[in-house]
Amino acid sequence: MAPAVATTIDVPRPLIAIDWGTSSLRGARLGDDGAVLEERAFPRGILTVPAGEFPAVFDELFGDWMSAPDALCLIAGMAGSKQGWIEAPYCACPAGAAGLSRQLAWVEAGRIAIVPGLSCEHDGVPDVMRGEETQVFGALNLLGIDSGTLVLPGTHSKWVRVESGGIRDFSTAMTGEFYALLRQHSILARTLPSEDGAFHGDAFDAGVAHAMRSPGLLQSAFSARTLALFDRMPQAQQPSYLSGLVIGEELRERALHADAHVIVVGAAVLTLRYERALAALGVRADTVGAQAGWRGLHDIARTIRA
Amino acid sequence: MAPAVATTIDVPRPLIAIDWGTSSLRGARLGDDGAVLEERAFPRGILTVPAGEFPAVFDELFGDWMSAPDALCLIAGMAGSKQGWIEAPYCACPAGAAGLSRQLAWVEAGRIAIVPGLSCEHDGVPDVMRGEETQVFGALNLLGIDSGTLVLPGTHSKWVRVESGGIRDFSTAMTGEFYALLRQHSILARTLPSEDGAFHGDAFDAGVAHAMRSPGLLQSAFSARTLALFDRMPQAQQPSYLSGLVIGEELRERALHADAHVIVVGAAVLTLRYERALAALGVRADTVGAQAGWRGLHDIARTIRA
Repeated sequence: MAPAVATTIDVPRPLIAIDWGTSSLRGARLGDDGAVLEERAFPRGILTVPAGEFPAVFDELFGDWMSAPDALCLIAGMAGSKQGWIEAPYCACPAGAAGLSRQLAWVEAGRIAIVPGLSCEHDGVPDVMRGEETQVFGALNLLGIDSGTLVLPGTHSKWVRVESGGIRDFSTAMTGEFYALLRQHSILARTLPSEDGAFHGDAFDAGVAHAMRSPGLLQSAFSARTLALFDRMPQAQQPSYLSGLVIGEELRERALHADAHVIVVGAAVLTLRYERALAALGVRADTVGAQAGWRGLHDIARTIRA
Repeated sequence: MAPAVATTIDVPRPLIAIDWGTSSLRGARLGDDGAVLEERAFPRGILTVPAGEFPAVFDELFGDWMSAPDALCLIAGMAGSKQGWIEAPYCACPAGAAGLSRQLAWVEAGRIAIVPGLSCEHDGVPDVMRGEETQVFGALNLLGIDSGTLVLPGTHSKWVRVESGGIRDFSTAMTGEFYALLRQHSILARTLPSEDGAFHGDAFDAGVAHAMRSPGLLQSAFSARTLALFDRMPQAQQPSYLSGLVIGEELRERALHADAHVIVVGAAVLTLRYERALAALGVRADTVGAQAGWRGLHDIARTIRA
């Protein structure tokens, strides 16, 4: 029997790109070239969707887009987790966009699919991501490169090493979650103002600097307590200081060289802080916005083999 | 005028030693030699005492002891903080037991006094302790030494360097608080059992080992998530793993040499874990129990000058 000839799907099929995360749901209708024609966002993360009701929620919010003839939908994010629509088992690193498209979990054959997350392992301990892999491929595409070190800041920041278009390795830093824990539930909450308020660059920089010269977060975090206790920092600046402290700790743990180059992917509210902290260390940074995710799904769609 | 001759108070005065912390209140009636004749404990930490009601609470719980002729009471801990009975300003390092006794904050002259806490400073950032200084002097006395590195594990662990009987320097690690934050409020809480349950030595050791080879807690903490996600560790063992992870991180941040010697001061439930983790690193440890605090107050009483 002759081997099947792999043919790529023609992307003139209308592509509906979905990012279905833990706490939010966003969708975009993309043009043939990957341009965003229309976007929608809903507070309908997977935690708000009872088991079995994913099809109904999807139809309600995106049914009109899917009524286009030959529409194709790709979904990235936690919708592929155990608690999601259907489970898309993790794809092991190294993996490229074509590898992900071969392991899509099809909700409806040829019509709606979930992109698998990635896993890797260090010293017997696994690491995982869901959704960020798609943003990584989109960011590389938007920058026109195929290798680099990327960081995707967030509740669980991902540091990703890409070589020749494939994700070789990555690791997770629980930076955003530690900020929230310290901000809301720790002894620091007693002296912090109730709202974060305006961003204070000097206080942020002081937090980054203290984290960089500290051996670790268990020690450096206490400085937010004592600076308040000794009235060394106005209360309104303390949330920015704490933000600098945890982002500085994330960078300290990476042990970046001063001549390193990092691509920061995400929404400006976070990437601006990472750019600022990286600049303080002398590390060059390029930034790609949250549209990287749509571009990544467009990329994966182009590698689907019929 | 001839200089006043300093005379020490005769410790045959009955000494009532009090440890008044944030969440608990303990007291002991001591014999002439510092031996504990009687002990009491109450869930009446300073957070439970409205401003102005410290005298009433004290009289209710220790009035009978204080009725002894010539009774002297020394109080260590958060009772000397802004939120306490009266504020006992921090004493700057270096400081010995005699230095503390010269800066006692007298609630009733010659009868009831609060021991000040200590402060030190690194790179413009202050650090503080209240209560641990008293345990340090007691531990040194019990061991018959005047120099060493001590750790007092807890919500906020204190690492203390003592030379020639004086505390030169110290630093705080928020280890117990981070454990509680991760245990109760983080994403890890979703996969951890509701109760800590029995201690699992192997899981604890695995946590220590992972922390020691990790660059920091933002990265290592995520392992508690993924080991659960991939069913690599039984749920019942995960609290011990997490405990090993944060205690291991505390030791990693200290960068202890394998030939170091550390004195661990506190209650057995914690000191046993620190001894175990230190032994895994090849560090020698001696342990002193919580009675160190009573001995420290006895020491300070002996240096009060009339």
